[in-house]
Amino acid sequence: MTYKKFNDRVEEILYGGDYNPEQWPEEIWEEDMKLLKEANINEVTLNVFSWASIQPSEDEYDFRRLDKIMNLVRKNGLKVMLATSTAAHPPWMAHRHPDVLRTEFDGKKRKFGGRHNSCPNSPTYRKYAPLLAKKLAERYKDYDNIVAWHISNEYGGVCCCENCEKAFRLWLKDKYKTLDNLNYAWNTEFWGHHFYDWDEIVIPDLRSEFFAWNRTQFQGMSLDYFRFNSDSIFRNYQDEYREIKKITPDIPITTNLMGFYEDLDYRKWAKYMDFVSWDNYPSNECGPAEIAMSHDLMRGIHNGDSFVLMEQTPSVTNWLPYNALKRPGIMRLWSYQAMAHGADCIQFFQMRRTRGACEALHGAVIDHVGTNNTRVYREVKQLGLELHKLKGEILGSRLDSKVAIYFDWNNWYALRVSAGPSINIDYKNEILCYYRALFSEHIDVDIIGPSDPLDNYKILIAPMMFMSQDGYYDKVKKFVSDGGTFVATYLTGMIDENYLFKLGGYPGEYKEVLGLWVEESDALPEDKANSFIYDGTKYPAKLICDLTHLDKEDDCLSVYEEDFYKGMPVVSRHEFNKGKAYYIGTHSSSEFYRKLVHNLCVEQDIKPIIDISALDDPEQIEVTARENYNGKFIFVLNHSDKDIEISLPQNGTVLLSEEHIENGHRIKIKAHDLLIYKV
Amino acid sequence: MTYKKFNDRVEEILYGGDYNPEQWPEEIWEEDMKLLKEANINEVTLNVFSWASIQPSEDEYDFRRLDKIMNLVRKNGLKVMLATSTAAHPPWMAHRHPDVLRTEFDGKKRKFGGRHNSCPNSPTYRKYAPLLAKKLAERYKDYDNIVAWHISNEYGGVCCCENCEKAFRLWLKDKYKTLDNLNYAWNTEFWGHHFYDWDEIVIPDLRSEFFAWNRTQFQGMSLDYFRFNSDSIFRNYQDEYREIKKITPDIPITTNLMGFYEDLDYRKWAKYMDFVSWDNYPSNECGPAEIAMSHDLMRGIHNGDSFVLMEQTPSVTNWLPYNALKRPGIMRLWSYQAMAHGADCIQFFQMRRTRGACEALHGAVIDHVGTNNTRVYREVKQLGLELHKLKGEILGSRLDSKVAIYFDWNNWYALRVSAGPSINIDYKNEILCYYRALFSEHIDVDIIGPSDPLDNYKILIAPMMFMSQDGYYDKVKKFVSDGGTFVATYLTGMIDENYLFKLGGYPGEYKEVLGLWVEESDALPEDKANSFIYDGTKYPAKLICDLTHLDKEDDCLSVYEEDFYKGMPVVSRHEFNKGKAYYIGTHSSSEFYRKLVHNLCVEQDIKPIIDISALDDPEQIEVTARENYNGKFIFVLNHSDKDIEISLPQNGTVLLSEEHIENGHRIKIKAHDLLIYKV
Amino acid sequence: MTYKKFNDRVEEILYGGDYNPEQWPEEIWEEDMKLLKEANINEVTLNVFSWASIQPSEDEYDFRRLDKIMNLVRKNGLKVMLATSTAAHPPWMAHRHPDVLRTEFDGKKRKFGGRHNSCPNSPTYRKYAPLLAKKLAERYKDYDNIVAWHISNEYGGVCCCENCEKAFRLWLKDKYKTLDNLNYAWNTEFWGHHFYDWDEIVIPDLRSEFFAWNRTQFQGMSLDYFRFNSDSIFRNYQDEYREIKKITPDIPITTNLMGFYEDLDYRKWAKYMDFVSWDNYPSNECGPAEIAMSHDLMRGIHNGDSFVLMEQTPSVTNWLPYNALKRPGIMRLWSYQAMAHGADCIQFFQMRRTRGACEALHGAVIDHVGTNNTRVYREVKQLGLELHKLKGEILGSRLDSKVAIYFDWNNWYALRVSAGPSINIDYKNEILCYYRALFSEHIDVDIIGPSDPLDNYKILIAPMMFMSQDGYYDKVKKFVSDGGTFVATYLTGMIDENYLFKLGGYPGEYKEVLGLWVEESDALPEDKANSFIYDGTKYPAKLICDLTHLDKEDDCLSVYEEDFYKGMPVVSRHEFNKGKAYYIGTHSSSEFYRKLVHNLCVEQDIKPIIDISALDDPEQIEVTARENYNGKFIFVLNHSDKDIEISLPQNGTVLLSEEHIENGHRIKIKAHDLLIYKV
Repeated sequence: MTYKKFNDRVEEILYGGDYNPEQWPEEIWEEDMKLLKEANINEVTLNVFSWASIQPSEDEYDFRRLDKIMNLVRKNGLKVMLATSTAAHPPWMAHRHPDVLRTEFDGKKRKFGGRHNSCPNSPTYRKYAPLLAKKLAERYKDYDNIVAWHISNEYGGVCCCENCEKAFRLWLKDKYKTLDNLNYAWNTEFWGHHFYDWDEIVIPDLRSEFFAWNRTQFQGMSLDYFRFNSDSIFRNYQDEYREIKKITPDIPITTNLMGFYEDLDYRKWAKYMDFVSWDNYPSNECGPAEIAMSHDLMRGIHNGDSFVLMEQTPSVTNWLPYNALKRPGIMRLWSYQAMAHGADCIQFFQMRRTRGACEALHGAVIDHVGTNNTRVYREVKQLGLELHKLKGEILGSRLDSKVAIYFDWNNWYALRVSAGPSINIDYKNEILCYYRALFSEHIDVDIIGPSDPLDNYKILIAPMMFMSQDGYYDKVKKFVSDGGTFVATYLTGMIDENYLFKLGGYPGEYKEVLGLWVEESDALPEDKANSFIYDGTKYPAKLICDLTHLDKEDDCLSVYEEDFYKGMPVVSRHEFNKGKAYYIGTHSSSEFYRKLVHNLCVEQDIKPIIDISALDDPEQIEVTARENYNGKFIFVLNHSDKDIEISLPQNGTVLLSEEHIENGHRIKIKAHDLLIYKV
Repeated sequence: MTYKKFNDRVEEILYGGDYNPEQWPEEIWEEDMKLLKEANINEVTLNVFSWASIQPSEDEYDFRRLDKIMNLVRKNGLKVMLATSTAAHPPWMAHRHPDVLRTEFDGKKRKFGGRHNSCPNSPTYRKYAPLLAKKLAERYKDYDNIVAWHISNEYGGVCCCENCEKAFRLWLKDKYKTLDNLNYAWNTEFWGHHFYDWDEIVIPDLRSEFFAWNRTQFQGMSLDYFRFNSDSIFRNYQDEYREIKKITPDIPITTNLMGFYEDLDYRKWAKYMDFVSWDNYPSNECGPAEIAMSHDLMRGIHNGDSFVLMEQTPSVTNWLPYNALKRPGIMRLWSYQAMAHGADCIQFFQMRRTRGACEALHGAVIDHVGTNNTRVYREVKQLGLELHKLKGEILGSRLDSKVAIYFDWNNWYALRVSAGPSINIDYKNEILCYYRALFSEHIDVDIIGPSDPLDNYKILIAPMMFMSQDGYYDKVKKFVSDGGTFVATYLTGMIDENYLFKLGGYPGEYKEVLGLWVEESDALPEDKANSFIYDGTKYPAKLICDLTHLDKEDDCLSVYEEDFYKGMPVVSRHEFNKGKAYYIGTHSSSEFYRKLVHNLCVEQDIKPIIDISALDDPEQIEVTARENYNGKFIFVLNHSDKDIEISLPQNGTVLLSEEHIENGHRIKIKAHDLLIYKV
Repeated sequence: MTYKKFNDRVEEILYGGDYNPEQWPEEIWEEDMKLLKEANINEVTLNVFSWASIQPSEDEYDFRRLDKIMNLVRKNGLKVMLATSTAAHPPWMAHRHPDVLRTEFDGKKRKFGGRHNSCPNSPTYRKYAPLLAKKLAERYKDYDNIVAWHISNEYGGVCCCENCEKAFRLWLKDKYKTLDNLNYAWNTEFWGHHFYDWDEIVIPDLRSEFFAWNRTQFQGMSLDYFRFNSDSIFRNYQDEYREIKKITPDIPITTNLMGFYEDLDYRKWAKYMDFVSWDNYPSNECGPAEIAMSHDLMRGIHNGDSFVLMEQTPSVTNWLPYNALKRPGIMRLWSYQAMAHGADCIQFFQMRRTRGACEALHGAVIDHVGTNNTRVYREVKQLGLELHKLKGEILGSRLDSKVAIYFDWNNWYALRVSAGPSINIDYKNEILCYYRALFSEHIDVDIIGPSDPLDNYKILIAPMMFMSQDGYYDKVKKFVSDGGTFVATYLTGMIDENYLFKLGGYPGEYKEVLGLWVEESDALPEDKANSFIYDGTKYPAKLICDLTHLDKEDDCLSVYEEDFYKGMPVVSRHEFNKGKAYYIGTHSSSEFYRKLVHNLCVEQDIKPIIDISALDDPEQIEVTARENYNGKFIFVLNHSDKDIEISLPQNGTVLLSEEHIENGHRIKIKAHDLLIYKV
């Protein structure tokens, strides 16, 4: 195993975040430096939204203020992630070059405003954005405190303008070569959509094929548009990446991602990111497992390497329906949670709270009151002290998961626009159901995609793998043949990459390894459920009920208890060479997923990192393990409101307290507290 | 009585549906023929969406593939309903002639996509659509297996483009002759809308008079626009009808309607349809009575003649929120239900399930698995066998209803946009309330319109006849004078055809025959109700409570029990010459409608076809009777989940089983089963 | 105190309303005159929507019909409020001069339709609207029965067209002088919005900075747009005002306002209105206190002067979800309620019910039946008789409130678009909470704004004064120093007029007088609450919970009982010189507000006008007092469904009944009845 820090030149845990001194008079800057240092901050992200100030017109650049800021933070010993400022174009650019403005999904041409507002195929944007990146790289290349480049900011959204339409046609020509291929892939004989000329093709949006954001009339075409849009924006990233790399080949480059963000296929992006960084803003309803799953996704798209928590709020957000305060200790707990899943760096948005516009009520290390005398500042400072103590020992350590969950953006796109069988199908939630069960069992999980190797895993769970990527079945078949456990669910293997349904029976090729054929799928309204008995307990069958025929009757583990398909199999296990393939033909309760996952792990002899299953609510206790040349670091986080007591499994040392513990010794973890145990 | 089959040249029950071989490679076609014949299919609808393939450009037509298909099905002994393919224009047409694209109700100009996408007033569409119909008629006129032409497909929607606007002005000029007439009819002095020039008039849409799809500021103008839009699309139908009729005068022509579809005034259409055909896709919430009511409407608009069930799904749809499977037996039961209400032909959408785009999850006779080994295929085959056994004996038979319910599209338009008195007024639902009561009493009903004769009826129920068509009152007056029973409700007779309110007191002329004056109407929120006692039982008064004054105190049958209008009449009966006129001044419960309707029928000596009122839930048992030269066919359908036992009233024969039954003999009908009893 | 009637030349209570004879044939007019006189109507509003009829083209005016109408009503002794008809432009104007049409907030260009449809910055509108006003003034200046000009009608809405955009830039240039000032005020360094040229600025709408009607990305810019839009429409009013004033300087001018109407800053308008008039259309959910609060606002914006109830429905509206009838007596009761709060004139919309378009189901004095034989007509006539008896004795009398509630449109704008802390913050509702408490205590209240003097008040309540207008703190400080009681709540004093947050701690300058600092604010979801004990009773803390630090521990009156801020102050009272300043750091129940307000009044020795606190539901009993040279008029209105009995505090006379009452004598007021007691 190779242990890879997010940044080779960083020797300690970086701690900091977005800092926007350009919003403040210079007399505040010195005050900032004092307060940041007192809080043990050692790094800042600069220059995220300064394009308009730096470039006042087509031919003019003015770096004077940024020079001052760069010198100030260098003088004060702070590392820098230097942003390229291209996430919001200047007003003058929109005014003089309207091609830079996006057209919305409903055809509305935008005017200047907001951010993430540039058409990805705008010639103007594609000229000036990489040029700015280049100018910045040239000017600041010798600042040795720059630890990374931060291209743009939270890329996303869609554009449906005429420039995009033209670019879409070129993208399609490149993909399909001939219109015959395209007509076949999109099934254009349906509803007489046969195209005779590339120019007849229009973007599928609310003016053409869509009738709601997730309801389209041509799925294949719509998937291609989602891919094209993701690729277009990705090309914006690459435009800047290339310019910077030429000048500073040794400084790593990133852009801040957003976890489970639907519009962009981050797996394609991650290949061109020197490290992954992301912004963690869970909603009010988000439990610890869901946050953890996002961290695992962000680690997973970059081969399990360490990542950067680029943004989190130290206290409060401003865009939620109810912007509750982060309770005391939660910011610290969630920071360590990121680290427990692979983060090597902890950052905030933002250092000083802005005075005006829509984020003025968003939390910051330094509040409008401007002092160190706030709860939030004290918590930030305390965490800074702890991270400083931890030094760099943990950097680059990795998780060693034996269980993988399959997640694919193309499949997400396909399920977003599937017409039928139910409006309640929810890909991310189905994944979360299995993830939460594993989380509650305290088993490390990797979130993987179609191109990731399966060698290291004993269990592969692929919920709702509606679209089967070409060739993926062969990987699964080999995985099971070699002794792995494969889990598939309803809505599996039904379509190919073009959203053409497989002929010969669902779930396509997977019929073989699963030993079954799914004849029909019933969709249940929200207030209805069927039921089944699994391993002695009765569970509900909801949402979708597959009507399945097994090749071998003995493979049946559970049957439906009601309706006309009473007695038909709902949970089955098929032995295939050395391995086993499970099929779960419905959606059930969290209790079922817990039970199932527990049995799978027992069967494959996968044990929890620490056995604390006797706890009241194991989903509130999180356990992960990272390992590198320095040792193994077991994280135990208590997300519950109660103190707990656990037994540690090996001799080792509790970091921060430096307490040495003997195997089996019981130790208390307070509510919202955690420990890192080095063994 | 004239017994009229939907098609004089058809001697057996046609059984088939939409077939789209153009979506499949030719090697599949022979397989299709085998499977369709095995399923006792004897007819297919072809060429519904092939415009783009048949006409690659303005001057080019290519019928080679359609020739092959036509020859294939003829060779295999299948009848054909040949569609004209004009329900979706080709991409090249949209690209080169953008006038063919619609503009939405909110002013959004559409791009190419979807179907039903052509502007009805587009010169391009009006040129090429009838031309295609003509070419098809010329080419295939000698195929003697063509049983009907199927023009376009599921016409509908609206367009608000400039071409439509210009056409709207011409339509208005034709209707009103002078602007004075128009200004009067639209009451343009209100809010200063006086028009001095026809060109000042714009389409009432979300850019002008509407502020929601059903909220307008000028009702009269809006009604005219609804009528104009229906007429415009109707003219598209007529364009093609005329071309085809010239060439094949003996082949009947239809287009598939959609039951209670608001946008199009089907009564006007039916006059130019050689027979009515329609697509039955009930929602999940639809009970058997509601489906039955749609069949009765579709029969009613064409003088009670036989019709064609053009489309139904054999199993599952794809656009409902929850696409539940049709339970075993339901497809068969609903097919016979159509027949029970006048269908002479049973069809499906579709023969083979499409591989891509938005209907790939819609049910079909041949599923993606491609075999005869599915539940759905077996059910289709079984029904095919039964229909084959029934031969043509029942064709052209008619229902002989003594009760009519009045339903008018113009009134529907008016109530859609009425500003006040309550957002919850629901014309179709009010009709359904009375219909369900009659359905539960097992009384045949006709749904009639303003121009239909009343001679054959003893009871005429006109729920919420807000708009009184000119002269209709005279018909009603004669009907009552001659001994009929007339039932009116709240919101009756308030406006004329221009949406101008009647002066002199509501309900306008109907005051005379009803013997009352409605002074005010109170609107109740959803959670409030008044109450009244009718025939010894207390019922709720909801939604609207009319404050009514009776000419004769004795006419009062029930009074309000609460509020400041306590003691005022809510149900009244006025004798007028030989007949009676009832007024129901509120909305009540299904129990009330059952009781009322029962009493009305007793009073008029109308008896159920079979007396099975002792059953648990009579609304789950459906009874109708059709009659022709061959005899009378009594349909008894058990929609419930339980077996029932009934007594048959006359000697006769149970079709299919060929069992002969004596009068009074009890016979069992299983859950979801039915019998056809010939007497 | 100056007693100021709404109109110096009016000597009796005017009673009438909107009359639209132009919608009717002339033979109806004489019938109208008879019916209006019989109903004791003495005034009509004419010519509200006649522009299209009066001006058939750019150069043509036709006053013949209006002449007839004016002569008719003069001959019949009716006073007139003459409207200028500019609330809906003619179709020909829209057709020939499209600049007159608005562009909606989402960028949709409107076509002709509706009313309130003119772009306020349209050159066409700004030319022809004042010209029409001028023509009308010239033509009818000598009609001595004109008691007022009524400019346009219910001004409102927004426009986002290019003309408005250009005008917005000029407005901004005038306000900010330099782009540096503007860039600072809008905090354009945030998200790189630095403007280098005025022409780069676009209107903040759904195409630019907004992403929902109340969600913007740049608050400062958005507030300026709201102000600009209000000013633009206000300028339309002034355009007409100036023209009319030149010609008839002695006839007062008004336009009908709409109470708490968000789009227009009525306080600016009121300065240019000779008297305030407004339209009272409460929703179904509106209790008597909420209606009363609107009256007080409408009186308050014009220095407490008498106002006109310009419109109310005599019976029913047509635009509510459920248009319930006004129960018998309610129209009368609500008419007197208006008078109790300062109305000198009672009017209806409308005299005769229109026949067509969207208001045909709106109530009127003369219904479609066209007779005097309706409940509504009888009630109107009865009230007319009473008002006639009252003569003019009460005209110009004023309320003498010791309690003021602060309400500011700029603050409303700011809270509308605040991003955070909760979607449930509701400025108007927070004010209503305090108002209802005072209403239930039977204390007269003034609703005041930033520029109103505070001298007359003992208590000033400023709920959610998020934005502190420049200099207002000094007023508050003096008010408290001089012995006043000031009440502030959560979300106070956080921003300046540019929506720039105050530095140095919330609530800005108010920290001093309140003796506290608010460190953080927690936002609670709808189903959660904290709690506190105040004056011995436990109350809920909802919505927002401020985490507050008091300068003096003893100022604390209540602390939170739960969560991590348990024990922190939630209600506090700080003595500041001779006065007291209360801080209420949360939202609570009506019981709390009742208790708090009661204690405040006791502390300041403010007594109810009549002590009837022993009544079951004091919020259903309304008491106010108006006073002028003729005496003091105490209004007691019984909004409840039960009769009540009260003691009158002084010797006096019950008007209408002319009963003389001795101090302490008990008198009965029936359900929905009232008395006016002159002392």
